Amino acid sequence: MSARAGIIVTGTEVLTGRVQDRNGPWLADQLLELGVELAHITICGDRPRDITAQLRFLADEGVDLIVTSGGLGPTADDLTVATVAEFCGRELALDVAMEERIAAILRRLIGDRPGVDFDAVRAANRKQAMVPVGAEVLAPVGTAPGVVVGGDGPTIVVLPGPPRELQPMWHTAVATEAVQQAISGRTQYRQEMLRMFGLAESGLAETLREAEGAIAGFDALEITTCLRRGELEIVTRYEPDAADAYRDLVTLLRDRHGATLYSEDGTTVDEQVAGLLAGHRIATAESCTAGLLAARLADIPGCSDYFAGGVVSYSNEAKAEMLNVDPVLIAECGAVSEPVVESMVNGALYHFGADTAVAISGIAGPDGGSPEKPVGTVCFAVRAGSVAITRTLLLPGNRSDIRERATTVAMHLLRRALTGVGD
Amino acid sequence: MSARAGIIVTGTEVLTGRVQDRNGPWLADQLLELGVELAHITICGDRPRDITAQLRFLADEGVDLIVTSGGLGPTADDLTVATVAEFCGRELALDVAMEERIAAILRRLIGDRPGVDFDAVRAANRKQAMVPVGAEVLAPVGTAPGVVVGGDGPTIVVLPGPPRELQPMWHTAVATEAVQQAISGRTQYRQEMLRMFGLAESGLAETLREAEGAIAGFDALEITTCLRRGELEIVTRYEPDAADAYRDLVTLLRDRHGATLYSEDGTTVDEQVAGLLAGHRIATAESCTAGLLAARLADIPGCSDYFAGGVVSYSNEAKAEMLNVDPVLIAECGAVSEPVVESMVNGALYHFGADTAVAISGIAGPDGGSPEKPVGTVCFAVRAGSVAITRTLLLPGNRSDIRERATTVAMHLLRRALTGVGD
Repeated sequence: MSARAGIIVTGTEVLTGRVQDRNGPWLADQLLELGVELAHITICGDRPRDITAQLRFLADEGVDLIVTSGGLGPTADDLTVATVAEFCGRELALDVAMEERIAAILRRLIGDRPGVDFDAVRAANRKQAMVPVGAEVLAPVGTAPGVVVGGDGPTIVVLPGPPRELQPMWHTAVATEAVQQAISGRTQYRQEMLRMFGLAESGLAETLREAEGAIAGFDALEITTCLRRGELEIVTRYEPDAADAYRDLVTLLRDRHGATLYSEDGTTVDEQVAGLLAGHRIATAESCTAGLLAARLADIPGCSDYFAGGVVSYSNEAKAEMLNVDPVLIAECGAVSEPVVESMVNGALYHFGADTAVAISGIAGPDGGSPEKPVGTVCFAVRAGSVAITRTLLLPGNRSDIRERATTVAMHLLRRALTGVGD
Repeated sequence: MSARAGIIVTGTEVLTGRVQDRNGPWLADQLLELGVELAHITICGDRPRDITAQLRFLADEGVDLIVTSGGLGPTADDLTVATVAEFCGRELALDVAMEERIAAILRRLIGDRPGVDFDAVRAANRKQAMVPVGAEVLAPVGTAPGVVVGGDGPTIVVLPGPPRELQPMWHTAVATEAVQQAISGRTQYRQEMLRMFGLAESGLAETLREAEGAIAGFDALEITTCLRRGELEIVTRYEPDAADAYRDLVTLLRDRHGATLYSEDGTTVDEQVAGLLAGHRIATAESCTAGLLAARLADIPGCSDYFAGGVVSYSNEAKAEMLNVDPVLIAECGAVSEPVVESMVNGALYHFGADTAVAISGIAGPDGGSPEKPVGTVCFAVRAGSVAITRTLLLPGNRSDIRERATTVAMHLLRRALTGVGD
C-alpha cells in the first residue's frame, strides 16, 4: 500500500511558458522525501473549467492528495479557492478573523503611502478571506491564506503561487490532520544516484537487461536513467529491504563500466573537482568555450581558495600575447591542435603561477570547419602537477551543444588528472 | 471556432524535478504562434498506465491535438510510442527502412570505437524503429524517430525529449496532413515582443492600467508580462484588426519609459550588442562573473570578427599580472572598487589591442561581504572608443543570481556605450 499524489499548477503565464514553474519540481521533491508517490503534474490557465477538469482527472485517478499552486491573488482572474470549493461541494464563507489579519498585513505593507486608497485595497483583498466551509485555513506568508479541504475524495491543499509563500505554507499543510490521513499509506523509500561519463545510453541499457536476469530482487528497484550535459544519471528508488539488490547492481555496473562510473554517491564532477583542487592553484585557457569552464569552476562558493583565473584567448593574437603561444606554431599546426593547447596550458601555468591548468581550443561552428577538422573538433590539454593529458575529440551537436559538452569533457579530464591518471 | 491542444511531457526525471522541462514552454510558444489554444500541459513518469490516463483525459477534454515529448530512447523504460499505439488501437510494426537509417546513424556516431559491440547497440535501437501501423514517421534528428498518429480522436504527435531533437521534428510534424487537419480551426494571431531593462514590474503595471482607459480597443490586446534575467518582456497577442491599439500601446510605453524600452522588435540585448560591435574589437576583464560575460559574447556565431578575448582575474595576483592593475590600488581601494575596474578595463584594452572593453568586479557571496560592501555589490567599467561608463550597483539574489544579473547589466552598459551614451 502506498500514497499517491497529484499537483495542479495554475496560471496562464506558466501555461504559456512566459514564467517557468518552480513549484511543481519543488513539491515533487517534497513528496518524494515524504515517501508519497507523485503520479501527475498538470498545468492549466486561470480558467475554472480547466482547473475543475484537472481536479476531476486526478480524483478519478484515485490519488490520495492533490496540491494546487497559484490563483489566490486579489484580482478577478484568481479563482482557485472558489473552484476547489465548488468541486468539493462546499459553500464559501467569509472568515472574519482572517479578513482582519489580512487587513493588518496590508496596513503594514502599504502604511501611509500617499495616493493609495486603503479601503479599496482592503475590499479587493476581502475575496482572499473567503474560505470553503469546514476547510482548515493556512495562515498567509504574503497576503493570501491557503486552505486544506479534507472529506470523502482526495485531500486538497490549496497554496499560493509565489515560491517564497508556498514553501513555508506547505510545511504547515503537511502537519494538518487531513494531509496526515491522506498520506498515511506512504512508503519510506531510499533513493540513490549514480553518475557515469563516457558510456552510451544503449550500453547502459544492455547492462541493465543483463542485471534483470542476474540480480535477485532486481524488480524491486525502480530505475530511471537520464542523459544530461553529456553524462548519464541513474536514479534508483527502492524500499529498504531491496538494499541487497541495489548493492548487487552497483557491483555489476562497477565491473562492466568501472572507468565510466565516476560517482556512486550522487556527487557531481564539479563537486569532486572542487574537493580535489584543495591545496592546488588552477588556471584556465579557453578558446571555443570562451569562459564557460572558468565560470563553471567559479560556480562553487569558496573557489577563490584554489581558482587563480583564466584567459579567454579567442583570437590568435590573444593566444600569443596572453599565453605566450608561438605564432609560428599556430601557423604550422592550426589554432585547433594538440601542440597549441599544450602551449596554452603552459602559458596559463606560468602567468597565473598555477600548478594545475586546463586548455581548450576547438571549432564550435557553424563556420570554420574543414574536411580534416570538421565542426565539433576540440583539443584539450590538462596539467595537474606532473600528470599531463592531451586529447582531441569530435563532439556532436550545434554550437551551444559543442561548447557545453567541451566544458564537461574538460571537467572530467581534470578530475582524471587530479586523481593521478595521465595519458 | 478555434483549435485546442494539450501537451504531455513524459519522463520520471522531469516529473520528480531532477530535470527542468524545456519542451512544455517551447511547444506552448509554438502553439501560440500557430494560433492554437493550449488547454493543458500534463507531466507524468515513464509509466504506461499514467501516460494512458493523460491521453484519455486530454481526449475526453476534446482537444484537437496532443503533443507528447520524451520516452523514445532505446532503454526499456522508454515506452511512449507503444503506449500511444495501444491508446489508438494500432499495432506496432518494424519500419525496416527506418531501422537501416538508425543503424547508419549509429555507425557514424560510434564508428570503430574500440570495445563497443555494434550489433548489441543496434539490437537495443531496433525498438526505436517500431512504429504504429498507418502512422506518419518523422525522420530522427538524433536516433529516435517521431510519429504522427491521425484518425478518429485527436491527432497525436509523438516527439523525443531532447530539445535539439524535438524542435526541428516539431516543424516537420506541423507540416503533416494529420496535424494541419487537426488545427484547421485555429485563429491567426499576430504576436509582438517588447523588451525593457531598468523598470520595475509595478511601474509597468501602472502604465498598463493607464493604457486601459486611454487606448481605444485595448481589450483586444492579450498582454502577458514577464520578468526574466532582470529584464521585462511584454508579449502581446492580437488579431490583425487590433493593430492600431497595439501601435498606440507602443507609443504610450515609449512616451512613459523611453529610456528603458530598448527593443521594439523582440531583438535581445545580445543581438543588438553583436550588431553594434561590427568594426570594433572587444575584450573583457572579469572577476566575480568569471567568464560568463565572455561566454555570452561568444554565444553569437561569427563573434570572432570582433571578440578578441578576455581575462578572468579571479585572484588579485591575476589582476596585477594579466591586467597591470597596481597592487597598491587594490590594497587601498579594495578589489571591488571603481578605480580597480577602471584599471582592469585599461589593462584589457592594452593587452588585447582592443578599442572596446568591459570590466566587472563584485562580491557574489555567500561570503566576502562587509557593511560597506555587502554581498551583491558589483562595480562595472565600460569603454567604447572615447565613451566611458563606470557604475557601482547592489544586485539582489544568491551567488548565481548576482553573477547572472551582473552579466546582463554589463551587456546593457555596453549597449549604451556603443550607442555613444557615456556617463
